[in-house]
Amino acid sequence: MSLPKKVKIVEVGPRDGLQNEKGEVPAEVKIELVNRLTDAGFPNIEAASFVSPKWVPQMATSKEVMAGISRKPGVIYSALTPNMQGFEAALAAGANEVVIFGAASEAFSQKNINCSIAESIERFVPVAKAAKDAGLRLRASVSTAFGCPYQGEVPLDSVAYVVGRMRDLGCDEIDIADTIGVSTPRKTQAVMERAIKEFRANGLAGHFHDTYGQALANIYAALEVGIEIFHSSVSGLGGCPYAKGATGNVATEDVIYMMNGLGIETGVDLDKVVDAGQFISNFLGRKAASRAGNAIAAKRAG
Amino acid sequence: MSLPKKVKIVEVGPRDGLQNEKGEVPAEVKIELVNRLTDAGFPNIEAASFVSPKWVPQMATSKEVMAGISRKPGVIYSALTPNMQGFEAALAAGANEVVIFGAASEAFSQKNINCSIAESIERFVPVAKAAKDAGLRLRASVSTAFGCPYQGEVPLDSVAYVVGRMRDLGCDEIDIADTIGVSTPRKTQAVMERAIKEFRANGLAGHFHDTYGQALANIYAALEVGIEIFHSSVSGLGGCPYAKGATGNVATEDVIYMMNGLGIETGVDLDKVVDAGQFISNFLGRKAASRAGNAIAAKRAG
Repeated sequence: MSLPKKVKIVEVGPRDGLQNEKGEVPAEVKIELVNRLTDAGFPNIEAASFVSPKWVPQMATSKEVMAGISRKPGVIYSALTPNMQGFEAALAAGANEVVIFGAASEAFSQKNINCSIAESIERFVPVAKAAKDAGLRLRASVSTAFGCPYQGEVPLDSVAYVVGRMRDLGCDEIDIADTIGVSTPRKTQAVMERAIKEFRANGLAGHFHDTYGQALANIYAALEVGIEIFHSSVSGLGGCPYAKGATGNVATEDVIYMMNGLGIETGVDLDKVVDAGQFISNFLGRKAASRAGNAIAAKRAG
Repeated sequence: MSLPKKVKIVEVGPRDGLQNEKGEVPAEVKIELVNRLTDAGFPNIEAASFVSPKWVPQMATSKEVMAGISRKPGVIYSALTPNMQGFEAALAAGANEVVIFGAASEAFSQKNINCSIAESIERFVPVAKAAKDAGLRLRASVSTAFGCPYQGEVPLDSVAYVVGRMRDLGCDEIDIADTIGVSTPRKTQAVMERAIKEFRANGLAGHFHDTYGQALANIYAALEVGIEIFHSSVSGLGGCPYAKGATGNVATEDVIYMMNGLGIETGVDLDKVVDAGQFISNFLGRKAASRAGNAIAAKRAG
């Protein structure tokens, strides 16, 4: 199987990663983090979430962050938008891409947002329309696509249904997320191959968590079936809300290390990502969760 | 590509893992660890090293450990034997398999044991002969096969040379080791495919380190080219002597989790491995280094 020559790495640390941090991270720290990631060469950075601060206090500074970052032309700065209020805020803040979301697991949808998958997607119709009208990129995130903390197995048909609905809403990109990190390589390929039947392969992204240490193997397996976009979080920021103390988002440093080894172009400077990882880990007062990041830092220290 | 239906997992934690631990681990703790691993179902456990205690003080208890463990019929208990003195000790201790070793990197060989690769293998000729004469299994470990801390790249020809020499010494099994954890999946496949030209695929083992987070991806890639034996270390015991604070041997729990997900039989009970990992991590006074192990333990704790 031939692998893609080039992939897009979407850095989600500033939003998906930091969102799960308990302690407050001030806007200026987030701004420096985003600036460092911009400088490292990421083409797409998930920088903000315009959700009610009542639900996610860590994201209350999103407006300030979006106003404070130094943007590089061509880089997409994404913001999560749960509703029209969030969309208006993201638009005003100059987000280049808004992100809507839905679970592939019916049980997860019911437990998390108290409505069915179909209803949850219906709620995004106005956001999707407004995004297209405003000329913004639209991305959808399909959570629990590889397994669910409540129902366990998630049928491929459910994944296909959500991907199809998101496609019909006009999404430019759809990420298929292993929210609880339970997938293994062949499962990953089966889910991705099913998603590819609903949406073009080069518009699909793999969003893998490393909860069970499987993320890199899953990313490699996804590359083999033609996936060209991957999400990752600098220094493995994030953790897992479903298993305290467990690992969350796959660490960007590990992903870039693998892509470099595979000869797959990312445009990202690994050393600068390691620096950004050290910066935010130092702020958070803990060791970075990236294995490659720690190994490179250890080698530098001699 | 079809994957093997069944693989052999060689648990190396008690030797290769603990060997790198600074603090003394008493024989009774090692014995309980080996017994727990036996009970978990491993068909092969690297339990001892009959090397001079001057060089590896942690292994000074090897005789006591081998005498104290409860053996299960059919399980192979392996011991590292650097020379004839070590071989005699391993034989007396009732090892089922002795392990000889050599680097694929000339620079590593020179730096580590102050002789050429060819000379280093020559020294094992009497050990190999004695092992065959005594009816013991003979395994060879080929270190730095995917990269070297001193010379960087290691030519495929060097790997092929060492594998061929070890084959000629009568080895039953040969493991190809990524001593510093630098390989990525396609590199892994290239090295393994070259090794397969020198030795039967089902006698080759992959020994991967997770220093850069790549081990699981490498194991998956090795499965794709037909490798059916893998080494791993419970709770990721070991660390990396070449990068302080970095990760070492791939964690057994992560490997078993992946094999279970792939539907590949190992005969190993993951829950019992997690227990064994918690046991030794508690003794060492630190969090287990296995992602799957920590996630499963976190789920148990609720």
